[in-house]
Amino acid sequence: MAGVSTPLDADRAAAIVRDLRATRRRTEELAAPLAPEDQVVQSMPDVSPTKWHRAHTTWFFETFVLAPHLPGYRPVHEAYGYLFNSYYEQVGDRHPRPQRGLISRPTCEEVGEYRAAVDRSLDELLETADEAERAAVLPLLELGTQHEQQHQELLLMDIKHVFSCNPLRPAYRLGTTTTSRPDRAPSRWVRIEGEPITPVGHDGRGFAFDNEGPRHDVLVRPFELADRLVTEGEWRVFVDDGGYERAELWLSEGWAAVQSEGWTAPSYWDRDGDGWSVFTLGGTRPVHDPTPVVHVSFFEADAYARWAGARLPTEEEWEVAATSAGAGEGPNDLAGGRLHPQPLDPAVPEGGLAQLLGDVWEWTASAYRPYPRFTPPPGAIGEYNGKFMSGQMVLRGGACVTPSGHTRPTYRNFFPPAARWAFSGLRLARDI
Amino acid sequence: MAGVSTPLDADRAAAIVRDLRATRRRTEELAAPLAPEDQVVQSMPDVSPTKWHRAHTTWFFETFVLAPHLPGYRPVHEAYGYLFNSYYEQVGDRHPRPQRGLISRPTCEEVGEYRAAVDRSLDELLETADEAERAAVLPLLELGTQHEQQHQELLLMDIKHVFSCNPLRPAYRLGTTTTSRPDRAPSRWVRIEGEPITPVGHDGRGFAFDNEGPRHDVLVRPFELADRLVTEGEWRVFVDDGGYERAELWLSEGWAAVQSEGWTAPSYWDRDGDGWSVFTLGGTRPVHDPTPVVHVSFFEADAYARWAGARLPTEEEWEVAATSAGAGEGPNDLAGGRLHPQPLDPAVPEGGLAQLLGDVWEWTASAYRPYPRFTPPPGAIGEYNGKFMSGQMVLRGGACVTPSGHTRPTYRNFFPPAARWAFSGLRLARDI
Amino acid sequence: MAGVSTPLDADRAAAIVRDLRATRRRTEELAAPLAPEDQVVQSMPDVSPTKWHRAHTTWFFETFVLAPHLPGYRPVHEAYGYLFNSYYEQVGDRHPRPQRGLISRPTCEEVGEYRAAVDRSLDELLETADEAERAAVLPLLELGTQHEQQHQELLLMDIKHVFSCNPLRPAYRLGTTTTSRPDRAPSRWVRIEGEPITPVGHDGRGFAFDNEGPRHDVLVRPFELADRLVTEGEWRVFVDDGGYERAELWLSEGWAAVQSEGWTAPSYWDRDGDGWSVFTLGGTRPVHDPTPVVHVSFFEADAYARWAGARLPTEEEWEVAATSAGAGEGPNDLAGGRLHPQPLDPAVPEGGLAQLLGDVWEWTASAYRPYPRFTPPPGAIGEYNGKFMSGQMVLRGGACVTPSGHTRPTYRNFFPPAARWAFSGLRLARDI
Amino acid sequence: MAGVSTPLDADRAAAIVRDLRATRRRTEELAAPLAPEDQVVQSMPDVSPTKWHRAHTTWFFETFVLAPHLPGYRPVHEAYGYLFNSYYEQVGDRHPRPQRGLISRPTCEEVGEYRAAVDRSLDELLETADEAERAAVLPLLELGTQHEQQHQELLLMDIKHVFSCNPLRPAYRLGTTTTSRPDRAPSRWVRIEGEPITPVGHDGRGFAFDNEGPRHDVLVRPFELADRLVTEGEWRVFVDDGGYERAELWLSEGWAAVQSEGWTAPSYWDRDGDGWSVFTLGGTRPVHDPTPVVHVSFFEADAYARWAGARLPTEEEWEVAATSAGAGEGPNDLAGGRLHPQPLDPAVPEGGLAQLLGDVWEWTASAYRPYPRFTPPPGAIGEYNGKFMSGQMVLRGGACVTPSGHTRPTYRNFFPPAARWAFSGLRLARDI
Repeated sequence: MAGVSTPLDADRAAAIVRDLRATRRRTEELAAPLAPEDQVVQSMPDVSPTKWHRAHTTWFFETFVLAPHLPGYRPVHEAYGYLFNSYYEQVGDRHPRPQRGLISRPTCEEVGEYRAAVDRSLDELLETADEAERAAVLPLLELGTQHEQQHQELLLMDIKHVFSCNPLRPAYRLGTTTTSRPDRAPSRWVRIEGEPITPVGHDGRGFAFDNEGPRHDVLVRPFELADRLVTEGEWRVFVDDGGYERAELWLSEGWAAVQSEGWTAPSYWDRDGDGWSVFTLGGTRPVHDPTPVVHVSFFEADAYARWAGARLPTEEEWEVAATSAGAGEGPNDLAGGRLHPQPLDPAVPEGGLAQLLGDVWEWTASAYRPYPRFTPPPGAIGEYNGKFMSGQMVLRGGACVTPSGHTRPTYRNFFPPAARWAFSGLRLARDI
Repeated sequence: MAGVSTPLDADRAAAIVRDLRATRRRTEELAAPLAPEDQVVQSMPDVSPTKWHRAHTTWFFETFVLAPHLPGYRPVHEAYGYLFNSYYEQVGDRHPRPQRGLISRPTCEEVGEYRAAVDRSLDELLETADEAERAAVLPLLELGTQHEQQHQELLLMDIKHVFSCNPLRPAYRLGTTTTSRPDRAPSRWVRIEGEPITPVGHDGRGFAFDNEGPRHDVLVRPFELADRLVTEGEWRVFVDDGGYERAELWLSEGWAAVQSEGWTAPSYWDRDGDGWSVFTLGGTRPVHDPTPVVHVSFFEADAYARWAGARLPTEEEWEVAATSAGAGEGPNDLAGGRLHPQPLDPAVPEGGLAQLLGDVWEWTASAYRPYPRFTPPPGAIGEYNGKFMSGQMVLRGGACVTPSGHTRPTYRNFFPPAARWAFSGLRLARDI
Repeated sequence: MAGVSTPLDADRAAAIVRDLRATRRRTEELAAPLAPEDQVVQSMPDVSPTKWHRAHTTWFFETFVLAPHLPGYRPVHEAYGYLFNSYYEQVGDRHPRPQRGLISRPTCEEVGEYRAAVDRSLDELLETADEAERAAVLPLLELGTQHEQQHQELLLMDIKHVFSCNPLRPAYRLGTTTTSRPDRAPSRWVRIEGEPITPVGHDGRGFAFDNEGPRHDVLVRPFELADRLVTEGEWRVFVDDGGYERAELWLSEGWAAVQSEGWTAPSYWDRDGDGWSVFTLGGTRPVHDPTPVVHVSFFEADAYARWAGARLPTEEEWEVAATSAGAGEGPNDLAGGRLHPQPLDPAVPEGGLAQLLGDVWEWTASAYRPYPRFTPPPGAIGEYNGKFMSGQMVLRGGACVTPSGHTRPTYRNFFPPAARWAFSGLRLARDI
Repeated sequence: MAGVSTPLDADRAAAIVRDLRATRRRTEELAAPLAPEDQVVQSMPDVSPTKWHRAHTTWFFETFVLAPHLPGYRPVHEAYGYLFNSYYEQVGDRHPRPQRGLISRPTCEEVGEYRAAVDRSLDELLETADEAERAAVLPLLELGTQHEQQHQELLLMDIKHVFSCNPLRPAYRLGTTTTSRPDRAPSRWVRIEGEPITPVGHDGRGFAFDNEGPRHDVLVRPFELADRLVTEGEWRVFVDDGGYERAELWLSEGWAAVQSEGWTAPSYWDRDGDGWSVFTLGGTRPVHDPTPVVHVSFFEADAYARWAGARLPTEEEWEVAATSAGAGEGPNDLAGGRLHPQPLDPAVPEGGLAQLLGDVWEWTASAYRPYPRFTPPPGAIGEYNGKFMSGQMVLRGGACVTPSGHTRPTYRNFFPPAARWAFSGLRLARDI
């Protein structure tokens, strides 16, 4: 299957069920601040309406858990299989992605009923399954939970894009998304030694997605990595230095995107008199120098690094560094509720790597391709990650909108190099 | 101004205010069966969301009546002028039409509050205006009422298109839109003599839009006009005879549309086994032979007429015929609530022209161009009709979704020749 | 057939054959200044390569004359029917128009051989045909000749567009295309009375295209028409007065074209320091005030007229005026070889209408629709004009690149309202 | 600079000049079979006209050699710098790539004169340069020669595409492109051991492009590589097995390309009754089973490998294998003049790797990204390879249209994953 996990003891089984229920509940909590009108809009083909996310994650359990494992189960609605299948070719035809915003029915309330009905059936399955059945079902429930967590992040990315298209610029949630802290500039370089031959990839303890393995050896030479993320203030200097006007800083495809898309700053930045304002899930505010920059494409991150006389780390370098750093400092993720990257805490001691998990997904220099000897699991679930292994770049870390516990140092996120609506930023690396 | 009306006596003034209030109320009644989710969707650039119609008609009163005439009036929201201006260049910038479906806020409820606030201000204006002010304001109120009636029809056309894009095919309103009646085939030809030189255009008694004048003489030679509309049953024969596969029946642009759009039947027809089903505002039902065909483009109407060995009437011919016919048989319009064209009532005596006002807008052979000596009124209101006088064809009559009293024999409706989402059908003519 | 002509006596027959040969020869003369490379390029879908014009006009004779009338005739090449059919659906499949510029073979030389072979076969047909056969064939030869004359004009329009896309701006033929003459400004209004009921359309004496008939009565009220064409100098004032920046001057479709196409001046005008340069078939020169403006779209002509407080004449008005004016002053057409409109000759006496035939095609206010009782001839030849009767506007007069004798006062040329690559200009009209 | 080469002794210097002259001459020989008409056409944005290739390679010498190094040099034509710059942003503005086919002038003959003039100036430079100058110039001449060799291959790829768009399907050069040989099926697996840590990348002896270095260590685990290329016969089985209809075989982007492009077979294959015909530079012939398949995209190669239960090799694996194999068997390249891949010679002994250099470029599993510590040379020449390092996949080997001596085991060719007009094929690999 797309996610892999070690054999389950009773504690682990209980944790899976607990996470399932908490995750199902949290999705509804994330949709709660939204009006029914907000939940319908698809502002570009990459974006899905909120109520689609709520329904699709439910369809996932219906299709991969209830239909094969709950005897006599009948789908809640015969058309939902068509409407809420995202991209699983082997499951059957599906509604075209760019048209998700045309579907006003089922309404938000009907989607809520759909969710409740499936939750009840999942409860019934858990109550009635024998040991063997539970052993088969629990990994699927875990995968469905992880899948829904991914969609919680997408839900927030997507509604941010939707609101940004409205001249009224509604806030998802009022309140401060920006912390006032001193700007700890410049960043420091941290030397990463590593062993000449180092293993990367998930070691099989706990849940991981299929694309995180197989674990395998790589050569990583010593290099240096910045101790923190690139900030809005640093990006402002890049803009002022003509960063978006100098072809020599850009990959050819990136320069074409600058021209065709009219990029002059990160997504959600707007000229505001002499300065810039930044749209966040908490509303619009002026550029805030110490806050990590977010919503830049790979092309922009790559151009910035070139301008700064540095480069992006490879995904193997990042993983080696993150593994050795421990990455345990209490990340700024969804649980914190800030919904925006935060300036580096001045209390964090110098010398280590900060902001690794949480805040923003960090673009790496690595194209998203399969690890050596990777094979996707058989069946439709094998489409989860494997078929997307071309045309995208790897991001590592996790973001301020990533559910707690969802990410880890081996986690491979991926987006096309021109995508900007994810919470993506960067950290610099350089050769020694 | 875009609409012109004779001097107002007290009765007329009272009628204008009564119509205004009834029309404002009816818009809300038409939106009432819809969920908030339904009111957000824009299924193609030509379609506007329901809540946009509700807000735009309100903005029209705010901009052309309250702002210039109610002392001290302040707009309900500073951004609504930008969001709800449809196409008036002289009023200022406006939100791009194809993006109306991206705007979830203001919500339906907030739009309702906007409408109520503007209605209160209109009441205040009517109560406080002196005679001179009333004389200036009443024609604008009449125009705003007529404008809102046009949008009531658009609201229904648009929501029908929205629902048709949903595989669930929701009905706007359950209930029979189709009347069971005998098929009175074939149609009869009615000879129209006319005078050699005949005046056409509005004569100035009562309200008319600017494009209906100036009244002017035309030459109309005797011709024949069918006594009723072309029906679904007749269209089925055309389809079965390869009507959509024979290039020689089509104008060149029309044939290109057949190919690029994949037309094989009128809009909202779907293959259903060996036959066809038709989507109506009351849901989906099988083809019903005696019902007039609707949702055909000018290109299709023109090809059908050629196939039938006939032609479409010119707009002048239609008007001359409709004027002489009296057109008073109690049309199937919005007041009747059928929301779909109806078969010819067998009680209608033969020999006359039936179904002239109501049922479907009838495509004519005439390009939409200004009448001789036409000049639009000065200012933004002059954009109402004048600037659209290229690239479109004239339709006459009115439809089952046209508010009662809104149309008349001189009324010039217009759509691009490939448009199919209006309630457009046809009646045949031929030379003698 | 698409062209209609009265019964042929011997003189007329001889004239047809003489014209045929002269026209065939002239096509090759027009291509002579061009390199093989020039004859291949298609600079936009509307444009055809020179060698395609040379081949297509030949195919026309092969298909409509030789194949049906020369016993045992075999096409020169089996693939040419596919490659060189322009738009005749009833003749069979054909090569897609936008891909004509991809076809390097047959080469120019091979096309020359194709032309020679067909000419020989036409000679053979003329020599061997009996009287009855000649009577059937001569009208087709006349139509083919007229058709080839139309393509001579297209050939020049098209190569001008091709050369304009080359930064080197090659000239088709060096030499002065511009005559130095005093600017006879302003234009004078000429009152056109007409009879209240006037016939328009071709009267059947001599050749005419099918779309020029049937002759029929129209009502034309007295109006005024400018004695000459609008000039480059007048257009410059329009540009300087913000003509391309004021939405209120434009039809809605026209304003959209201004925005999407970035129009700021007529086609082939380029900013040159403070002024403008104009690209002609003789190369680039500065704006020349007394020269008639050319390469403006209907939308621009319409906007200019509105700005000037005037309007465009209807096609009926133009025809009535041109018929009464006699139109015999020795037009600036292809025979003169100037290949560009010329300033009004100061020798032309005031009081009459100058520049009617020749110089530029004059946009009218009339949409291109069939005359009353028009029916196209049966068969493929009926596609010649009839199927294009939607979406275009009528132009009258003829241009500096129109072969001598090709045009006449009843001639109906037509182009889409946004087209600018034809030699199209305008003359103003106004109501009395 | 973009190409790097070791210090030059006299022999090497002489060889560079000899290669330069031979290469310049060969370009003209390759264009010789073409008519002027053929040399103008651009059949898609990726394709350039033949005369553009002839001019651009000349511009390269003018810009990077003559202008900086020949005192007093003046460009042959002031506009050629604009017309014939391909993509060097730092050299200045340039003519848009998709419009190269609109440029009929300079003619082929004028391009020939341009080439001769630049050749004369290069001779002058070589004769007049002192030692220091020669040392600076020779590496640039070598780079320009290598660059022109790349364009020789492009010239042939491009004209093949041009001719394929013509229903006449002209041949570039008549004569047999296909050798009749027995089909040596199936292929054999060759085990590649390698060292655990192996260097890859160019070692600096002789010319190499910048993207082939720096040489660096990689980990390559033992694997198996097919002894020969995948053939037309094998691909036919894939097609017959529904290879183009089974989504599960494809990457998601690849499957989208299958749908949008309508792929059902390699490029240049056409259904021919029950079988397939294949268009080659020598004309059209039936599928020939033993001939290696060519003109498949990365997506097709990847899907085929998955279907075959194998995979594509990484570029490091391919290089290690090719280096150990020696790759010296006399490749089928441009010198042989077959212009199409050839069946495996039965004389080649089993057990080794055949067809490594020549025949077809082999898709690898590797995204085209910079090697560790890669930095492009400063200045415009640094744009040669570096800025294209995103969105493409690496191909290795060389093809039947690659000039002799141009390729080597470390050579990194690259194309977008959907590209099919290069001479691209594949060889399978698998894990042990």
